[in-house]
Amino acid sequence: MTAREMVLVGFMQAQNCSNYPASWRHPDAAPDFLSADYYQRVARILESGRFHMAFFDDRLAMPDIYGADHAEAVRHGVRVVKMDPIPLLTAMAMVTSHLGLASTCSTTYYEPFHVARTFSTLDHMSGGRAGWNVVTSLNDSEAANFGARELPAHDLRYDRADEFLEVVIGHWNTWSADAIRIDKAEGLFADPDKVRRLDHHGQWFDSRGPFTVPPSPQDHPVIIQAGQSGRGRQFAVRWGEVIFAIFPTLEFGRKAYAALQEESVLLGRAPGAFRVAPLVYVTVAESQSAAEDQFAAIDALAKPIDTLALLSEALNFDFSSKALDAPFSDDEMASISGLQAIRDRVVRLSGNPNPSVNDFVQFSQRGTIKEAVHFVGSPQQVADGMEEWFTTGACDGFVLAATHVPGAYEAFVRLVVPELQRRGLHQHDYRGTTLRGNLGLDDYQPAAVPGD
Amino acid sequence: MTAREMVLVGFMQAQNCSNYPASWRHPDAAPDFLSADYYQRVARILESGRFHMAFFDDRLAMPDIYGADHAEAVRHGVRVVKMDPIPLLTAMAMVTSHLGLASTCSTTYYEPFHVARTFSTLDHMSGGRAGWNVVTSLNDSEAANFGARELPAHDLRYDRADEFLEVVIGHWNTWSADAIRIDKAEGLFADPDKVRRLDHHGQWFDSRGPFTVPPSPQDHPVIIQAGQSGRGRQFAVRWGEVIFAIFPTLEFGRKAYAALQEESVLLGRAPGAFRVAPLVYVTVAESQSAAEDQFAAIDALAKPIDTLALLSEALNFDFSSKALDAPFSDDEMASISGLQAIRDRVVRLSGNPNPSVNDFVQFSQRGTIKEAVHFVGSPQQVADGMEEWFTTGACDGFVLAATHVPGAYEAFVRLVVPELQRRGLHQHDYRGTTLRGNLGLDDYQPAAVPGD
Repeated sequence: MTAREMVLVGFMQAQNCSNYPASWRHPDAAPDFLSADYYQRVARILESGRFHMAFFDDRLAMPDIYGADHAEAVRHGVRVVKMDPIPLLTAMAMVTSHLGLASTCSTTYYEPFHVARTFSTLDHMSGGRAGWNVVTSLNDSEAANFGARELPAHDLRYDRADEFLEVVIGHWNTWSADAIRIDKAEGLFADPDKVRRLDHHGQWFDSRGPFTVPPSPQDHPVIIQAGQSGRGRQFAVRWGEVIFAIFPTLEFGRKAYAALQEESVLLGRAPGAFRVAPLVYVTVAESQSAAEDQFAAIDALAKPIDTLALLSEALNFDFSSKALDAPFSDDEMASISGLQAIRDRVVRLSGNPNPSVNDFVQFSQRGTIKEAVHFVGSPQQVADGMEEWFTTGACDGFVLAATHVPGAYEAFVRLVVPELQRRGLHQHDYRGTTLRGNLGLDDYQPAAVPGD
Repeated sequence: MTAREMVLVGFMQAQNCSNYPASWRHPDAAPDFLSADYYQRVARILESGRFHMAFFDDRLAMPDIYGADHAEAVRHGVRVVKMDPIPLLTAMAMVTSHLGLASTCSTTYYEPFHVARTFSTLDHMSGGRAGWNVVTSLNDSEAANFGARELPAHDLRYDRADEFLEVVIGHWNTWSADAIRIDKAEGLFADPDKVRRLDHHGQWFDSRGPFTVPPSPQDHPVIIQAGQSGRGRQFAVRWGEVIFAIFPTLEFGRKAYAALQEESVLLGRAPGAFRVAPLVYVTVAESQSAAEDQFAAIDALAKPIDTLALLSEALNFDFSSKALDAPFSDDEMASISGLQAIRDRVVRLSGNPNPSVNDFVQFSQRGTIKEAVHFVGSPQQVADGMEEWFTTGACDGFVLAATHVPGAYEAFVRLVVPELQRRGLHQHDYRGTTLRGNLGLDDYQPAAVPGD
């Protein structure tokens, strides 16, 4: 039995900036974000730091809800590029051997047969390192790219997502691991008794099969989920193997972590069935003062448009439509259909059930590096902070967002990783060959899969 | 002005066999078709032979229409595996520098926004080597994996595909090539006047934009099309830059090639706007007799189930439902909704408007290496055959299908390529850096794009 070690995930975006929209304005930010080389460089850095996984978010539209126009987002570079993450992950897989490779994919705008096929294929191509972050999508801008006028309502999206997962995982279960024979002499390619049709007929989907991809090295690519609001958290706890979260404070993190464990027990998940990893920004330098200077310079790159554009995108509400100090009405609060966790956090932190635009800006810190936990300081100070979160019940690891790319990953791997390893908090080498193995997870066991 | 040279394309499948379903039974067939290494080996072989492109077909279901069951296809390995080709192409891109990389993707079961994004991303990751083979899908087995009971009717699929192309190409046209600025000092990421929304509202699709992928190296990934029946050929001539065909004989090829050129003029395409490349199998050895022995051995690998399963799949008709010598009624002939080019060819070659199952087997040769043109002999004999087709108006090049993988590609590159190069028929080196440049194509010019 080895000591408990952190899960470390590199948060990535197939776009012109990191999760921090101002990152492209950083003097050291690499501009070649449209090339394979850019993503392969980051993959090598993360693997050299023994990160468990690189993980892409995704969005199927530009942030153009603020002011009902994309011009400001384009001008200021507020996450206006979004490539398909799958080719990027494959490129990264070809220059690494152990790093897990995961992407977000929407259950609202993709088909379960395609998603099952794509992630199973990625698992084959990467030798068992694929993961899928399940999202239900955010806003009307995405809907408009797919012929839908409006995003479906929040809870309805999760009902559909539940069935989507049943189809995807159902397809993955249809081939026995020993089905393939390749017996040339007998002319027997595979045992037909070990390949069955799914024959799924549900409320949202019909998908028959047989599935066309034999079992991949992990059998089931790792399932990642980030739902934090009521219905979303229930979904995450049912299906997730890595739960990605935004915990703005340690106290919040401890409560949320405990709540996830409790709900997991109620749903009958096995203990340790998932790892909880909050988003973190790290600014590290040889000395505290140098790190603080860097942090101040990075923080100063942010512009008000970053926050307003991303709040509008995430909450599916045009924040230009209200005066800065006008309170949101009850109806407006109820109409917010995107990331309800952000709305709920602003209400909680402001103590105001009808916050103003200014309250949303101040208490969400959307699009700034203060949105999530951020550690600033020497390697020892950063490690102290991470250790406290990790050992006092707030998380099982972290999703490292970059203040700029690739510098933030480089500095973390060069300065913080050795300190975490010295303390026995982070692996010196990978333990297995698959992502699931490296995460220390057993075979996939969601809370319930119909038919099992 | 250089002499006219052949376009050479390697035909690939993300599956357990080549286009020839018996290929997996070949003693030298590599069994690791689920690994990246398998596809990267083939990519390196094709690039060493200065092939212009590797090109994947795709199918979104197993061949399970014959006998309404998948057991026989699974047992005999009749194209039962179908991975997502995009990760495979990306893996191949990472070990090559000039080889074009194209995949089939269906306009019936994918969304235009996704297709636009995926192929534009692949073009970025490969440095300008992506191509998209547009298909409208074949049969009810595919429909059943996506919640549809039946494949839409043949001509209707092409009407929808026309609009699909308008959306995809429309999105690719929404960013000016010089939109991105990355001016950190000014905080100007891109010029908002050079990024516009598509705002497509059509019969089949609504897709608004703005598109989230800046212009890729080729600006427009190369469009490939294989329609050969009336409505399908019209579609191919309107949009295609490479037209992939099955020409069973030289005479057939000359007529079809001339017809394509004529229709191209009628539609207003520029001369030389597309390249026509028929499917070819090659069995080459140092001597004619050795090649003939190899051919006989390869041909003997085929089983009747291969043909019956693939005929049922391609024509969307259960060939087990009729006695071998019973003629198809007029209604049955009219009901065939898959690859109508196969149906039409059987009628033409048999001289029988109501052919039997036996006629379909004999005259389609579906699933055998006699389905397409096949050259068997010494390097000189194979080159003679290819030269005759190429210089007497039957084609602009060839799509090489493998009798087995990777042996068929290896033998062709080792023995035939040098002979073609010696005759000045095939390039000694790549002429440009993009697929479109290497194909000698100008900027993309379909017959008509609304809004232009």
